[in-house]
Amino acid sequence: MAGSEVVLLDFWASLFGMRVRIALAEKGVQYDYKEENLTNKSQLLLEMNPVHKKIPVLIHHGKPICESNIIVQYIDEAWQDKYPPLLPADSYLKAQAKFWADFVDKKIYDAGKRILSTKGEEMEKAKTEFIDWLKVLEGELGEKPYLMGESFGYADIAIVPFYCWFYALETIGKMNIEKECPKLIAWVKRCMERESVSKSLPDPHKVYEFLSEMQKKIG
Amino acid sequence: MAGSEVVLLDFWASLFGMRVRIALAEKGVQYDYKEENLTNKSQLLLEMNPVHKKIPVLIHHGKPICESNIIVQYIDEAWQDKYPPLLPADSYLKAQAKFWADFVDKKIYDAGKRILSTKGEEMEKAKTEFIDWLKVLEGELGEKPYLMGESFGYADIAIVPFYCWFYALETIGKMNIEKECPKLIAWVKRCMERESVSKSLPDPHKVYEFLSEMQKKIG
Repeated sequence: MAGSEVVLLDFWASLFGMRVRIALAEKGVQYDYKEENLTNKSQLLLEMNPVHKKIPVLIHHGKPICESNIIVQYIDEAWQDKYPPLLPADSYLKAQAKFWADFVDKKIYDAGKRILSTKGEEMEKAKTEFIDWLKVLEGELGEKPYLMGESFGYADIAIVPFYCWFYALETIGKMNIEKECPKLIAWVKRCMERESVSKSLPDPHKVYEFLSEMQKKIG
Repeated sequence: MAGSEVVLLDFWASLFGMRVRIALAEKGVQYDYKEENLTNKSQLLLEMNPVHKKIPVLIHHGKPICESNIIVQYIDEAWQDKYPPLLPADSYLKAQAKFWADFVDKKIYDAGKRILSTKGEEMEKAKTEFIDWLKVLEGELGEKPYLMGESFGYADIAIVPFYCWFYALETIGKMNIEKECPKLIAWVKRCMERESVSKSLPDPHKVYEFLSEMQKKIG
């Protein structure tokens, strides 16, 4: 690891890995990207995240930081001299930003995964929940340009990677997310104008192929 | 709400509520405690946490903060002038403290719940996992007095409430946690010497009665 101050262990289609990529790009941090084979994990990954054995892992000066939201918070602090700040300075707004990042993991990720892994009635239920939760998010967004107000930041970073799953979810689930949540999609497009986001998210068609393959394997 | 700067919506047996109680006690913050009836939630709870409709909710100057770990982080910041700090000052240690709090929610809470809600083989599996995860925690603790070193703080606050479930888990699951993890129990006892902890955790026998009743209702 000598010579590489910042290393990211990641997997291209990981929504969680994308968060870290966006945060590093926002801060202009150079790093070594190491793609993991999730069916044959590297010794380095197993050593750096022995508890969960999962990507993403950020290795900074040889020390691992795990769990995507925790990593993004770490990046904001460790590179606090670099513009822009990712979390709001105000304690209350900071707690709100963390709340929405946590909400996405608990509600939207879960419903999205169930759309991809179920059929029939169960899938319909997951679709309804997914759209309902997106509408909650859209309600929070309101007329603001970004989740927490005028500036792109932590909450946006936690949520916007889901966009690259939307094409797969719409195709597999036969649904139209933009029709249901037009303001949310307008926000996605606003985020995608940032190079930090557009360069960190893979092509949705490639994600669709990957998720379809996964679906077939699961049965 | 006029006149009460800090209000806590909570439920006596909630592991998550206990975290907030300990954090407020550590900081010496006075607050109005409002016990919720979880089968008939108050209008205030539904208004203050419309997304999850769950306790604990901390209301500070009329504004709600939800999700226990986020609340504890908020308390540490909002009352940063009050001793002691709950999170480590160092960015890396801060990320580690957050990692262990998150670990407990993802692994130990989940396995503990399965001990209480399953039978036979499934229960045995949950017991093995529960002890295995506690041993991971014990390994992290090592010879340190507290999870992150010399000072009691955020990671300890996130984990120690589980202790008041141990008697119920041992009785229902027919297991001996102290025999398996003696150093972890020594750490619990060290934490319990703090008034902030001992006064925030309910009697384990009362928790056992409550969880047994819950178990019967679930079937």
